[in-house]
Amino acid sequence: MRIARFTTGQDPRYAFVQGDPGSEYLAVINGDPLFQSVEPTGERVQLDDDALRLLSPVIPRSKVVGVGRNYAAHIAEMGNEPPARPLLFFKPNTSVIGPDDPIVLPAWSTDVSYEAELALVIGRVTREVSPQTAMQHVLGYTVANDVTARDAQRTDDQWARAKGFDSACPLGPWIQTDLDTEELAVRSRVNGEARQDGNTRDLIFDPAFLVSYISEAFTLLPGDVILTGTPAGVGPITAGDVVECEVEGVGVLRNPVVRR
Amino acid sequence: MRIARFTTGQDPRYAFVQGDPGSEYLAVINGDPLFQSVEPTGERVQLDDDALRLLSPVIPRSKVVGVGRNYAAHIAEMGNEPPARPLLFFKPNTSVIGPDDPIVLPAWSTDVSYEAELALVIGRVTREVSPQTAMQHVLGYTVANDVTARDAQRTDDQWARAKGFDSACPLGPWIQTDLDTEELAVRSRVNGEARQDGNTRDLIFDPAFLVSYISEAFTLLPGDVILTGTPAGVGPITAGDVVECEVEGVGVLRNPVVRR
Repeated sequence: MRIARFTTGQDPRYAFVQGDPGSEYLAVINGDPLFQSVEPTGERVQLDDDALRLLSPVIPRSKVVGVGRNYAAHIAEMGNEPPARPLLFFKPNTSVIGPDDPIVLPAWSTDVSYEAELALVIGRVTREVSPQTAMQHVLGYTVANDVTARDAQRTDDQWARAKGFDSACPLGPWIQTDLDTEELAVRSRVNGEARQDGNTRDLIFDPAFLVSYISEAFTLLPGDVILTGTPAGVGPITAGDVVECEVEGVGVLRNPVVRR
Repeated sequence: MRIARFTTGQDPRYAFVQGDPGSEYLAVINGDPLFQSVEPTGERVQLDDDALRLLSPVIPRSKVVGVGRNYAAHIAEMGNEPPARPLLFFKPNTSVIGPDDPIVLPAWSTDVSYEAELALVIGRVTREVSPQTAMQHVLGYTVANDVTARDAQRTDDQWARAKGFDSACPLGPWIQTDLDTEELAVRSRVNGEARQDGNTRDLIFDPAFLVSYISEAFTLLPGDVILTGTPAGVGPITAGDVVECEVEGVGVLRNPVVRR
């Protein structure tokens, strides 16, 4: 099942994405699938409808938890050492944007990078769960771009500014609830050119371990999002670029890059 | 004006704290002063009423922004260098607790410390404001305890776990809206013994500069909280302790320490 959040001009609504590839449509539902029971309204919106705008499938009420250095080849390209335990950081909900929303380069950075990632969307209050039961707490999966200001990441001791600025967390295009995450391609393209081409089989800490570990660090709430880390191939983006991040089995998250 | 959030057994409500020291009472209001116009209900609750429980005066909908290394004497005691710019980090809203709520020591830490701090509560959407106008965006002030697991802070590259665990952000006892923050004592006590005795005149980056700087890093929303840093005198707490943090002109925030 794929859950989309969208607008056709009014308040955000939710829908299930249905239909065959190329002729997909939104089957609109009443209610927020994260917090309420939902029922179909019978309304359909075509994915290519001019009035349709997909939104971030979730705006966390509490937190986005990022995981750094979780693919060996990316650790090597950045000159870092593999961590003994998951390296956790926060991105605030003010950094979340949706498909096609612009990534706005901050005035204080001249070196901003994309990072394509598999993201987990938490469905239930999650506290001190084991890796064996952790995935029962995950509602589904989406694509994230863990946009990072590399210069601020180098100069600041903590990454709040480098990874927390407005628009630094594109999410989308929707939540895929049925997915085996063992072996999925994680890719990015800038202006159509391939940049990252990793695979979740190379994750150092897998989704079940991450949910368990994070749930021992702090309580996860429904709608919280975990970014599982980025594979090798990161690099700079500049105004005018279009970045696409893709996770096999989920979809493509596309965002233009602008400088105000 | 002092704004309290409280319960007498039902849903959280808001009140203005009125009366002379020693015979203070809550003048109950309808509405949330952060987001709505409010009006007095006429109901009064005495501060020493057995049914009264003060709650965290605010639960941020977006973020608590911490500032590290903002008092020279604390930087020296930790063996660090003064930062070139404010050192920012996030605490999630799941870490926020209120007066008298227990600080729960995490199972994975054996070295947890208190940190008394002046906290700013943001009242308006705040984005790229100058230091000259920054304080117009602050609704008021409260006391924070920036509880920190020192061992995790040392072993983890980022401080998410060390400063983000459940109960690591006591706030209270209320929001004081009228306060000159130029020269205020910031103190802590453990089991009645003095530990910290700093003063906001020694802040490296003052509140107006912090709000301005942070607002250039990311947008602040109403209810977001900024912790301005802790003075020298930090140290460990263990189960059974009672920690009091105090900011002159605001009040005393008291929390027991437990281990589950």
